Amino acid sequence: MIDTAAFLADLDTLRKIGEYKTGVHRPTFSPQDMESRHWLAARMAEVGLEPTIDGIGNVFGRHTGPGPHVLAGSHIESQNYAGWLDGALGVISALALARAGLPVDVCAYCDEEWHFGAGFIGSRSLIGRLSEEEIDASVGTFTGQPLREALEQAGLAGKPRIVIDPARYKGAFEMHIEQGTQLENAGLRVGVVTGIVGIRNYVIEVEGKQDHTGGTTMAERKDALVGAMRILHAIDMEFPRVCGERSVWTAGKLVLDPNAPHIIPGHATINFSFRDIDNAVMDRMAAALERIVQEHNRRDRCPATLQLTARSEPALSDPAMLAALTSAAGELAPGAWQAMPSGAIHDSQHLARVMPVAMLFTPSIGGISHHWTEDTKREDLELGMRVLHEGVSRFLAA
Amino acid sequence: MIDTAAFLADLDTLRKIGEYKTGVHRPTFSPQDMESRHWLAARMAEVGLEPTIDGIGNVFGRHTGPGPHVLAGSHIESQNYAGWLDGALGVISALALARAGLPVDVCAYCDEEWHFGAGFIGSRSLIGRLSEEEIDASVGTFTGQPLREALEQAGLAGKPRIVIDPARYKGAFEMHIEQGTQLENAGLRVGVVTGIVGIRNYVIEVEGKQDHTGGTTMAERKDALVGAMRILHAIDMEFPRVCGERSVWTAGKLVLDPNAPHIIPGHATINFSFRDIDNAVMDRMAAALERIVQEHNRRDRCPATLQLTARSEPALSDPAMLAALTSAAGELAPGAWQAMPSGAIHDSQHLARVMPVAMLFTPSIGGISHHWTEDTKREDLELGMRVLHEGVSRFLAA
Repeated sequence: MIDTAAFLADLDTLRKIGEYKTGVHRPTFSPQDMESRHWLAARMAEVGLEPTIDGIGNVFGRHTGPGPHVLAGSHIESQNYAGWLDGALGVISALALARAGLPVDVCAYCDEEWHFGAGFIGSRSLIGRLSEEEIDASVGTFTGQPLREALEQAGLAGKPRIVIDPARYKGAFEMHIEQGTQLENAGLRVGVVTGIVGIRNYVIEVEGKQDHTGGTTMAERKDALVGAMRILHAIDMEFPRVCGERSVWTAGKLVLDPNAPHIIPGHATINFSFRDIDNAVMDRMAAALERIVQEHNRRDRCPATLQLTARSEPALSDPAMLAALTSAAGELAPGAWQAMPSGAIHDSQHLARVMPVAMLFTPSIGGISHHWTEDTKREDLELGMRVLHEGVSRFLAA
Repeated sequence: MIDTAAFLADLDTLRKIGEYKTGVHRPTFSPQDMESRHWLAARMAEVGLEPTIDGIGNVFGRHTGPGPHVLAGSHIESQNYAGWLDGALGVISALALARAGLPVDVCAYCDEEWHFGAGFIGSRSLIGRLSEEEIDASVGTFTGQPLREALEQAGLAGKPRIVIDPARYKGAFEMHIEQGTQLENAGLRVGVVTGIVGIRNYVIEVEGKQDHTGGTTMAERKDALVGAMRILHAIDMEFPRVCGERSVWTAGKLVLDPNAPHIIPGHATINFSFRDIDNAVMDRMAAALERIVQEHNRRDRCPATLQLTARSEPALSDPAMLAALTSAAGELAPGAWQAMPSGAIHDSQHLARVMPVAMLFTPSIGGISHHWTEDTKREDLELGMRVLHEGVSRFLAA
């Protein structure tokens, strides 16, 4: 049987590490993050797993008994000043599966939250898709700190990296908060995830000329923010013409140099990304973006460059795992669940390259995510935990 | 006679204080800035002036002989990592006038470069238009540090502030770099300034909702950068319909919160300003800006607020001072000078509230300003110095 009290108690304890208001601040490899990893390794040992913190920061708890095995987990670091459940829920629910006696390897995949390099360094390393060269070249998204230096400070330099053998596993499960309002708006308590969107990340650089705002006439100036704004406006006009029904696109970060009230911006850097469940739709959006930048460079006096910096593929859930979760949800949460795609990307998307995957969602109150006010009702956490346990049990027995 | 060799030597010495590449980094009240103020006070004493560094950071050198007097100077702090002549030229040329025996009070007006509060705290304090309450409320533009704390650290807390008696002066002169390309493009070496533009500064705040970029559908999201971009686009479309021939407008600073690639921006803050020599034109631009924000709030789901944070009035040069500079330029730089407005604002604009003012420009190579590559040919600096000396002499004799 699943011990939901212990599961909730573990979540509450973990919440205290790096506590910030009602959320947490545990950026990857910060002292708070490393404290949480060591705490998790100790909890894994308590439930009978063999814990290891490997050379990229993955916390891996190996089941010592016979299989067939499943892999379960998520991430334990947070976005800056963000929610207490994002990632932690998937790790602690996996720990609860192991405590309940299921043949589960538990993993906290390192840096799903993209504090370093091209993101997902933990899950990619675990499946053998992270090179030493990429680690050499990666730096902190917010800090600029080299990843090697951060690993050194975290006490992880020189430790071996774990690479799993996919043949050991029937599949990988991940429970996560929805990070949206679909469940809440429909009055539902559980989401069985049918697939995960793909994402394409771009950096758009706009080159202007830094100058005094008073001494430079409008005809002379090359204002990089004006250039950036015109590109963003073209996206705002063009993307609705090519997008799919559930496509999303976002410029989340815009950095001006020098960014001072009375200096004409000399340079603008935009981080832009879009997501969809269908690669054909994403190909249309990519082509539109390329045309927008091409046309901008024909017209504007601030030339722009477009670089695709990362790309992940849509991943559909495994039918047998989906069936097990669906039947469990139907029995334990009758009328209170739905099947749905995931608009967010997750470690499961990388694991899907080497084994079957499936995910389960709990509702996010107000849809809030990546902010310290993120939360989920305790009864929904418990219900999700019971559905996950029952689903994994049925899948293993099938 | 004017000693241009000593004038250039002083500029070269001052350039070493806070040197950054070929420019300087002397933000107001930084250790480098305070070193330059104390250095200047010592130079003032050398040329026979009575130096004081007052309670707001003004470095004031009082002529001890009989009048009629003129006031001359500019500012000595720099923008961050900016040019070596911006401000320094006006201060050191004023020092050279005093060395040449003219009855000149020399002043380095503190913080023309707007590192604190509403800017121009030095020249406004000098004419009695800076209240203790405003000092209490002012904070660092880039640092957020309270002005009171910065004054304390600079050793200026509790020192009296100098307020001048306008009756002491026939007028105030300021030499400055052009900060544009008009002189260079016309192949000229001296600009006699007919007037200084007015400027209106605004802060535009756009309120969105911070959320996960994947879990929030396009229909649900409130993206503050999209809202900000739509306002900037409307300005880009509407301002050409209401502007004057020489109007300029700029959004120099845009700050997103939290400004992370995969989080929908929850808040955007824009620093926007415009300039013109004619208040009627600026009134039209102000009305257009208000209409743009009003219409934005009728249409958009991210509401915006518009706040006028500072306003300076256009200031025309004094006819007698202009005539003296014009006749000096005609004699010393025949065919190599022009009369022109100043697109940048200067301390003289504030002094103009209490006495006649005039300014002289030297060319800026490539028009570059507020950047460490800013420069002026040495022969143009010397020529400007000779024209200023001759013009001030003629004005005093008139």
